[in-house]
Amino acid sequence: MATAAALVHDDRLRARRREELASELLTFLPRESVLTEPEELRPFECDGLTVYRRLPMIAVLPDRVEDVQRIVRVAAAQGVPVVARGAGTGLSGGALPLEDGLLLSLAKFNRILELDPERRLARVEPGVRNLAISEAADPHGLYYAPDPSSQIACSIGGNVAENSGGLHCLKYGLTVHNVLEVKVVDIEGRLLTLGGETLDAPGYDLLALITGSEGMLGVIVEVTVRLLPKQEAARVVLAAFDDLGSAGDAVAAVMASGVIPAGLEMMDSPAIRAAEDFAHCGYPTDAAAILLCEVDGTQAETDAQVEEIRAVLERSGASELRVATDETERARFWLGRKSAFPAVGRISPDYYCIDGTIPRKRLAEVLKRMRQLSAEYGLDVANVFHAGDGNLHPLILFDANRPGEIERTEEFGGRILEICIEVGGTVTGEHGVGVEKLNQMCVQFPAHELEQFHAVKRAWDPEGLLNPGKAVPTLQRCAEFGAMHVHHGNLPFPELERF
Amino acid sequence: MATAAALVHDDRLRARRREELASELLTFLPRESVLTEPEELRPFECDGLTVYRRLPMIAVLPDRVEDVQRIVRVAAAQGVPVVARGAGTGLSGGALPLEDGLLLSLAKFNRILELDPERRLARVEPGVRNLAISEAADPHGLYYAPDPSSQIACSIGGNVAENSGGLHCLKYGLTVHNVLEVKVVDIEGRLLTLGGETLDAPGYDLLALITGSEGMLGVIVEVTVRLLPKQEAARVVLAAFDDLGSAGDAVAAVMASGVIPAGLEMMDSPAIRAAEDFAHCGYPTDAAAILLCEVDGTQAETDAQVEEIRAVLERSGASELRVATDETERARFWLGRKSAFPAVGRISPDYYCIDGTIPRKRLAEVLKRMRQLSAEYGLDVANVFHAGDGNLHPLILFDANRPGEIERTEEFGGRILEICIEVGGTVTGEHGVGVEKLNQMCVQFPAHELEQFHAVKRAWDPEGLLNPGKAVPTLQRCAEFGAMHVHHGNLPFPELERF
Repeated sequence: MATAAALVHDDRLRARRREELASELLTFLPRESVLTEPEELRPFECDGLTVYRRLPMIAVLPDRVEDVQRIVRVAAAQGVPVVARGAGTGLSGGALPLEDGLLLSLAKFNRILELDPERRLARVEPGVRNLAISEAADPHGLYYAPDPSSQIACSIGGNVAENSGGLHCLKYGLTVHNVLEVKVVDIEGRLLTLGGETLDAPGYDLLALITGSEGMLGVIVEVTVRLLPKQEAARVVLAAFDDLGSAGDAVAAVMASGVIPAGLEMMDSPAIRAAEDFAHCGYPTDAAAILLCEVDGTQAETDAQVEEIRAVLERSGASELRVATDETERARFWLGRKSAFPAVGRISPDYYCIDGTIPRKRLAEVLKRMRQLSAEYGLDVANVFHAGDGNLHPLILFDANRPGEIERTEEFGGRILEICIEVGGTVTGEHGVGVEKLNQMCVQFPAHELEQFHAVKRAWDPEGLLNPGKAVPTLQRCAEFGAMHVHHGNLPFPELERF
Repeated sequence: MATAAALVHDDRLRARRREELASELLTFLPRESVLTEPEELRPFECDGLTVYRRLPMIAVLPDRVEDVQRIVRVAAAQGVPVVARGAGTGLSGGALPLEDGLLLSLAKFNRILELDPERRLARVEPGVRNLAISEAADPHGLYYAPDPSSQIACSIGGNVAENSGGLHCLKYGLTVHNVLEVKVVDIEGRLLTLGGETLDAPGYDLLALITGSEGMLGVIVEVTVRLLPKQEAARVVLAAFDDLGSAGDAVAAVMASGVIPAGLEMMDSPAIRAAEDFAHCGYPTDAAAILLCEVDGTQAETDAQVEEIRAVLERSGASELRVATDETERARFWLGRKSAFPAVGRISPDYYCIDGTIPRKRLAEVLKRMRQLSAEYGLDVANVFHAGDGNLHPLILFDANRPGEIERTEEFGGRILEICIEVGGTVTGEHGVGVEKLNQMCVQFPAHELEQFHAVKRAWDPEGLLNPGKAVPTLQRCAEFGAMHVHHGNLPFPELERF
């Protein structure tokens, strides 16, 4: 344990380092772009994973690429770690600052530099919001496909860093499939252009490597995205099932049918009831599960696809089928799904959200095993997930005030993740690893594969100064692996380390 | 210059090293899997880039992953470089052996390990031929999409190493978009699993990194590919144009129309005439250019797409439009395109094939500038290329026996590549860099980006023992950059170096 005297000593040391860094940064940045006071730093203390909070030593808000290069050089020269931050909407703590680190906000990089409808691309600064790209492309009948649920607020730089998905990534791919070129500043302050407008770039695929690298390899300062023509029509089918297994099999049947849905979502009974109580969207509350399947394309295509989907769902034993007849009904079908998380939060004192991915074919089997475990542990589970991708979001409902229930919940969650791995899936879904899932990475990867991740990291950042302690756990950490859970915002704060 | 005595000394040294290596390999490999005699080694002296030939010091043909791991460990321990080889159909010399190196043939790894129609995937050994996967999937109504022209012979391991494309990659993507998981043996002999069946794998995207890495990062020993449902119908439209510029604009117009063609190919007048003389496929020999545009989907979809394509091509000023009415006519339309290379080879003593990529929008402009250059240099150019991808294959026709024509051709080729870079394209197309395009990489990338490639290479292979001298040039080499050309199989043999 640190003594009070030692803490005071640390604070003094940090104040001195902060002062040194600030004075050097102020030689080329204006005063208002260099933040050092606690009240100025407060907005940067956490991202969307709000249970982890920490003030950075210093925060900077540059607005020119050359300044990002100089900032990184100065920080590297002083051995100060750098955490880049977009809109701060990430859900795994990827933008959590370090107490002795520099927080590099890209918020001022918010310009659309080029939008070419003919070449179907937009070249934008990293702080541009995801939805702003589609808004700018809209007059040309184009849009940017990846649509994370935070798309109104999240920025494209963060999307690249986390390889964001969204409801429609089932058909249109993740960020990596929709990005053409990225410019990054490396830890030496050099500007690198990765990828390009053409189909295949020569050399190693560093564009794919940087995408989803969670700020560990470089600072993203420009992104060129592919734009797609807007679809003429979108229609959604709601199917109810009397048992979870049939619903799981129906997902596999839809995906095997040849139709590629734009979105395919599933909710089980507890999630349906919570959503209906909350949003009054007309869901069948006696169903064991519902599927929401959206198709898009030309009017003729969607009509044909809706018929095919209906037929598949009927054959799969759907007890009820509804096709939204207009945009209002379509919005209502989605409303329940979109409000399912807050809805579940109302029916249980606590919940523990697991985010794992499994091969679609194993969906029914995994749901059955989850139900068996639910009975075994005496804990309810509400399921709301991207069924088409096999991306599970089981929410374990519990009450932390009941003795032993936290421990049982953690054990239950661990068993679910073990099942995900066992059936060939992964312990993470679409939100990145950040600080949240570091332990689960230890389960997913053997030591020599983690070592290879670290080797790649060192190829970019030998001193480990870019976003240290995120995304890939140290082997030491893996040796001490323990589960985590969320309870009213209090969470044991894990020690973060560099590799 | 090496003296005769020094060469004899080198030969003796190599013989001793070969003997040492063979004796260690024979402790776990059968005699017939370890080749050391020149006549045994002859089949491995080159790949599809036959102008480069060299006997390896030793060749091994293992049939178990454990043996690949042991071979790599033994070679690494003795400091012997390792060149992995699939079917040897590569066009850029990626599998060219080293005189002091071990040639690791994956030819015996030819089993399909798993084919699951429900999960729509095939898990195969690296030596399985590309087309064999589609043949095995055919009874299930599925196929493997990437279709390089060598697909009857090329192996999937090589496809991953080169990130192969094909006629249909315009719609269905390159190898990287169709591979789910790859198992590789790294230089330490460890087996790594990269990627997986689920949409997004946590950690850095090492699957994309290994794809197209040309054997520089690891030895591919297993590949899991995505299978697609076969399309119900395919139709092709042939459009003739009176000038190249209109044809180039038509390509941009087709791609901007919203229809994604399965293939979109272009040939100019010299290529059309050569193909017609050779294949008698009924091409309009008075046209300045033709486009071949294939669409696929359901019968209704293809009908609708053909109408849309027709309308776009008419608006773009096509002087003639033909839609293949049956499979025989469709095959005939394609026959000329497919035999265009040998056809051009008949009309000129020599040709120099340039392989560059440009943004589609710049197609008309680049074709016009190429024609101007053709007049300026007094050298004809025949163009046969993947227009939809912007992948140019200009063939400069020349006669090396005419004084100064080689030099003029090289200069002309260099100017074309400079134009590719200038308009935002790349100096390589779909065939990889190998040894063929090392110099052009110097033009494409600034030194610090090449350095980053080397840093990534070192993260996998610190001693540079995996396929040294390929794909990424040393900075020293770039300082000595000079053009290359092909003349009756004789080519100045460039010095190959490690990074």
